[in-house]
Amino acid sequence: MTSNENGQTDFIPANPYPFPVGLRPALVVIDMQRDFCEAGGFGAALGNDVARLRAIIPTVANLIEAFRNAGLPIIHTKECHRPDLSDCPPAKWIRGHRTPRIGDKGPMGRILIEGEPGNDFVPELQPGPGEVIVAKPGKGAFHATQLQTILEYLGTTSLVITGVTTEVCVQTTMREANDRGHECLLVEDATESYFPEFKAATLAMVRAQGAIVGWTGQARDVLTHLGYSAA
Amino acid sequence: MTSNENGQTDFIPANPYPFPVGLRPALVVIDMQRDFCEAGGFGAALGNDVARLRAIIPTVANLIEAFRNAGLPIIHTKECHRPDLSDCPPAKWIRGHRTPRIGDKGPMGRILIEGEPGNDFVPELQPGPGEVIVAKPGKGAFHATQLQTILEYLGTTSLVITGVTTEVCVQTTMREANDRGHECLLVEDATESYFPEFKAATLAMVRAQGAIVGWTGQARDVLTHLGYSAA
Repeated sequence: MTSNENGQTDFIPANPYPFPVGLRPALVVIDMQRDFCEAGGFGAALGNDVARLRAIIPTVANLIEAFRNAGLPIIHTKECHRPDLSDCPPAKWIRGHRTPRIGDKGPMGRILIEGEPGNDFVPELQPGPGEVIVAKPGKGAFHATQLQTILEYLGTTSLVITGVTTEVCVQTTMREANDRGHECLLVEDATESYFPEFKAATLAMVRAQGAIVGWTGQARDVLTHLGYSAA
Repeated sequence: MTSNENGQTDFIPANPYPFPVGLRPALVVIDMQRDFCEAGGFGAALGNDVARLRAIIPTVANLIEAFRNAGLPIIHTKECHRPDLSDCPPAKWIRGHRTPRIGDKGPMGRILIEGEPGNDFVPELQPGPGEVIVAKPGKGAFHATQLQTILEYLGTTSLVITGVTTEVCVQTTMREANDRGHECLLVEDATESYFPEFKAATLAMVRAQGAIVGWTGQARDVLTHLGYSAA
């Protein structure tokens, strides 16, 4: 927990109690990729309704703009693998016995392969200059990536977390961050799942027992903290 | 996925489909510690009903006995910190603003400190000779531990997971294991939470989308696989 220039701790309204936001919080945008959010991507190919995920795009865009204008760090993660799949565990490739598989040709290129059109971020949420991109082979953004090192260099342990899907990559990343000593605010209206009941359960369990994994809050309160008046 | 001596894959009945158990699965017993399972421990001090957790002890004991008799690896994890708290993130120590805190004196010694009576495993589930103990400072058993290295030396990527609590340390560990390429079977009647709704949600979300994190199954089916007739 850090303090502001006057030595006071700043807080953002949150559950289960106000989030002690550091002087230099980082925005983490998890896996807002075409593969998960657009028709023709991996998520849709597996039968999921991508409209639910697309609905948060404007809110995530507002948060990105606010962090950008405040000169605060922004980290975009994307789930992807090398073209030769050398970073894809056999257990991940074979799981589910479903097609298409990782690396198969899809409507937007090879599925979940870095550099393919479908693996890119959605057009509305493209990273800007100086923003960090973390390519991750797992669900968690810390596993087999440089994210922890990057956060240490940025000098922040205060993370505002957004993105998809809530109970898979977002939750896994938040749990990794929590174990590493980061304080995490998950923005309820800037995260989404294909399954609303899993989103609700995840929000409830991360903030349970006195924020055992972290906090949940609203985008408008983060925006207000950064000097944006609530619309 | 490995095969048996005849080159066939062995399976244990599970959800969402049979679990492809390796030749040398490891049993992982997560945090069956007095601090979480006994009156007077950290869990009880925070107002939780430990009876729910104690109810799985006989089932976990049966699984330990079966793995022991089969000569298969058994890994016991425990959440704990060094006496000087040098491995405890400030964010973890301060979280929740609640007392007692980690390191405070409790009825069974300093809370969550390695070597204190309350931090030990419950008497019914004491590790046997040759069994691996992993002391972990986080919720996940892979963070800041040698667990991944140990599993590589054991030559297994097939984990049968038990212990407490389902949505916190068990789920976090299973997500870490999944990202590292392990295939995990979470034993439904050998894991428990202080909150039954969180247990149910966790079981549902880990096996969703074709076992996106892994499988869930019953202790009796694991025991049958190991040659124990169902009682």
